[in-house]
Amino acid sequence: MKLLKDKILYEGQGIGNSIVKVDNFLNHQIDVNLMEKIGEEFKERFKEEEVTKILTVEASGIAIAVTTSHFFGFPPVVYAKKATPSTMVEGFYSAKVKSFTKGTESEIRISKSYLSKEDKVLIIDDFLAHGEAAAGLISITEQAGAKVVGIGAVIEKSFQGGGTSLREKGYRVESLAMIGEIQDGIIKFL
Amino acid sequence: MKLLKDKILYEGQGIGNSIVKVDNFLNHQIDVNLMEKIGEEFKERFKEEEVTKILTVEASGIAIAVTTSHFFGFPPVVYAKKATPSTMVEGFYSAKVKSFTKGTESEIRISKSYLSKEDKVLIIDDFLAHGEAAAGLISITEQAGAKVVGIGAVIEKSFQGGGTSLREKGYRVESLAMIGEIQDGIIKFL
Repeated sequence: MKLLKDKILYEGQGIGNSIVKVDNFLNHQIDVNLMEKIGEEFKERFKEEEVTKILTVEASGIAIAVTTSHFFGFPPVVYAKKATPSTMVEGFYSAKVKSFTKGTESEIRISKSYLSKEDKVLIIDDFLAHGEAAAGLISITEQAGAKVVGIGAVIEKSFQGGGTSLREKGYRVESLAMIGEIQDGIIKFL
Repeated sequence: MKLLKDKILYEGQGIGNSIVKVDNFLNHQIDVNLMEKIGEEFKERFKEEEVTKILTVEASGIAIAVTTSHFFGFPPVVYAKKATPSTMVEGFYSAKVKSFTKGTESEIRISKSYLSKEDKVLIIDDFLAHGEAAAGLISITEQAGAKVVGIGAVIEKSFQGGGTSLREKGYRVESLAMIGEIQDGIIKFL
């Protein structure tokens, strides 16, 4: 998606050899017009799929999931909540998610009320890096007996392997910008 | 907004004398079609205002801020991040926000990059209860020298006084559903 790649090059910021900061339009300030074009693009990529739920993780996935829902004819968006692990798990599906950037592990949870075995789930997130968040959402979907019809990421950092690993497991992954390398802050697309 | 009030009555859940749970369409699962109608209604209520930024707090305000931005012609949405207080405050405007429901105090932050003194800010949030989150966003806006043109809440719990206090200070507050009382789980609108 050229518009997105241009936006990443002109307004994003590569840091070191692994981080790309897109606070200017995605992770803190949100360019809603761009989010709508992203939603339209996800619909185009997954147009043959029936989608009954869109799953994401708070907070940065919400804007994209919402604009994507519009183009699929308004399936409900369900966002997993982040919580520090606790014993209160009743009524929730949960999964542990490691954050390589922050060096932390958290638990994400979705209420059992909002996923059923009839659901066909599209997973949407801002980044696909090591694939931890996507794996957590897949686990939650499959705990509910529902089907993952696809995984859509705005930015994939292919050098961190998450996308490759998910594709090898047979999941359909669509990323709108694939970063092959970040070298001393210079972002190179595949 | 009748559609919203009906949704609260049929799908919301009053708990005790102060809590209304709307996880079914707003705070966990999101009814995007309803969010778009809410965005359109905020535009109608604030139509004479020039809005250059829409401010909200992660996570539950994001969906509403995004759909509202659409109807205002895409001003950027900026969402305040919640963080535990730390010494790292450089480059951020911040405000302390008490949560009466959770009994905690957190700090919300917005990068100085995304607010300037020229900005005309519409504050959007899911709930207006004691008014702590709105007061925090007002403080951040005014720290930047920007102007608050209005505060839009989806649900106001008028008995908790936040809306009254903000109106008395001269802010324009628009709430789409005003709850006057919750009594043993029964929700009564004003």
